[in-house]
Amino acid sequence: MDVGGTKIAASVVDSEGNACSNIRVATERQDTARSIGQIAELAHRAVELSRIPWGDISAVGVAVPGIYYAATGLVWAPNLPGWDHIPLRNKLAGKLPARIVLDSDRAAYVTGEQWLGIARGLTDVIFLAVGTGIGAGIISSGRLIRGAGDIAGAVGWFALDPRAKEIYSRIGCFEAEAAGPSLARRAGGGLTTETVIEWARQGNLDARQIVDETVQYLAMGVANLVSVLNPQMIVLGGGLMQAGDLFLEPLRREMLQWAQPIAAQQVRIELSTLGEDAGLLGAARLAFLGSEG
Amino acid sequence: MDVGGTKIAASVVDSEGNACSNIRVATERQDTARSIGQIAELAHRAVELSRIPWGDISAVGVAVPGIYYAATGLVWAPNLPGWDHIPLRNKLAGKLPARIVLDSDRAAYVTGEQWLGIARGLTDVIFLAVGTGIGAGIISSGRLIRGAGDIAGAVGWFALDPRAKEIYSRIGCFEAEAAGPSLARRAGGGLTTETVIEWARQGNLDARQIVDETVQYLAMGVANLVSVLNPQMIVLGGGLMQAGDLFLEPLRREMLQWAQPIAAQQVRIELSTLGEDAGLLGAARLAFLGSEG
Repeated sequence: MDVGGTKIAASVVDSEGNACSNIRVATERQDTARSIGQIAELAHRAVELSRIPWGDISAVGVAVPGIYYAATGLVWAPNLPGWDHIPLRNKLAGKLPARIVLDSDRAAYVTGEQWLGIARGLTDVIFLAVGTGIGAGIISSGRLIRGAGDIAGAVGWFALDPRAKEIYSRIGCFEAEAAGPSLARRAGGGLTTETVIEWARQGNLDARQIVDETVQYLAMGVANLVSVLNPQMIVLGGGLMQAGDLFLEPLRREMLQWAQPIAAQQVRIELSTLGEDAGLLGAARLAFLGSEG
Repeated sequence: MDVGGTKIAASVVDSEGNACSNIRVATERQDTARSIGQIAELAHRAVELSRIPWGDISAVGVAVPGIYYAATGLVWAPNLPGWDHIPLRNKLAGKLPARIVLDSDRAAYVTGEQWLGIARGLTDVIFLAVGTGIGAGIISSGRLIRGAGDIAGAVGWFALDPRAKEIYSRIGCFEAEAAGPSLARRAGGGLTTETVIEWARQGNLDARQIVDETVQYLAMGVANLVSVLNPQMIVLGGGLMQAGDLFLEPLRREMLQWAQPIAAQQVRIELSTLGEDAGLLGAARLAFLGSEG
């Protein structure tokens, strides 16, 4: 299952990555009891649709849009009202007759792409999600990097410009300068990010300039991941990368200006091939691996 | 053994970290044959001084000032003339009657501090060496992070300022703005970094201003490590940190302005307690662990 701020997806996935009985619905956002109930109900519906008995289901993997604290089983998800350190693992365990495996969406994205996507079989991969926010899932030498407090990958906070703005202290410098909303902010005048992207595609010079500025910060952030972790591949995903045609080539070029030169030559920068399914398939993979009980 | 660009150190170390027969000499820089011969000779001298028979020596650990490619046994050390992918492991194996374990100095520093220094027993530690250059040794969940091509930790290349200067493309933005020589460069007029530090200690306002600018970039680089890796501790070492009294407190304060707030609260920023011995003891520890054969 992939729980997002706006949508929840569920699917029954076999150990080869074949998925059946996919369901995708709007997330219940009224209160935590209803959203937790919705997750359990959706799991039951997906299993029912698949006609596989619960006894044959190895585990339920759930990707959450925030931080999963493995030691306590608590979840913090800033975009879901009330999801402030809720005991999701325990709550779901009472409603589902299978082992529950939770993890952050970042961990699920990179795991999904490494299992079945563009990064299939690689050992050193980073998934950089650029949407409303920015975050990274990191696999190094085949292992997920979690950090001491389970919040590794908070790269939206990368410091990329010493000329600090007030917004940096609220959402982080990289996120302020390069996440989706940054395009609308640069444009001003009530324009949306979608409009800026549309105008840039049509060759509008002001819109192109705005895209170029965003690309510069994106390239700096990507370069920093290259220099510190020396990955084989960085997979770009998230909403903004639906405009990957505008961003990918200039980002690759500009990254070379910043990253450690040998590491920059070794890395491939690619768009996600699993798209919306990366989190769902990654959650399934994590469930099979059983990283958390 | 700790092989540096100017000095080589050797010592016999037991499994508890007790060191005896320490030797430290100037590095032979004429050619690679002589420097490799010097390393072997120094190992023999240290063992002889210790009166321990070679048969009781588990392994010879050697930290090198550059990149060690584990797959091939080659070493690249830009500050040693001719050390351009030399087969150091094979060369030493012919001269020393014990298992040879090589690794980068960055790996040795962080391993030493985690074994016997300020980070003793922690699982998520970064050693940030700030001297003539800048590099990081990284331990995450108890394991060294090496990267796909053994060059992880090249954080001197962190992009921290979009106003690119020519020097960034040669040594990296973070290294250009925050390594030791950056203070002399900011001062101009033939002043040395040592002079700037001395004047800053005496309260000279221009010198303080130069230190403040360096601290800002140092804090941004440290913050980026905090946000991406969520470590328990970052240990600061290297030549510039001999002026740690000037840097540490402002760096801690400024880091809080940039890093992911939860991770920033969790991390401790400390000066190296092992100093020059971090590499030597780390090399010994890596030899005992036998990470490479």
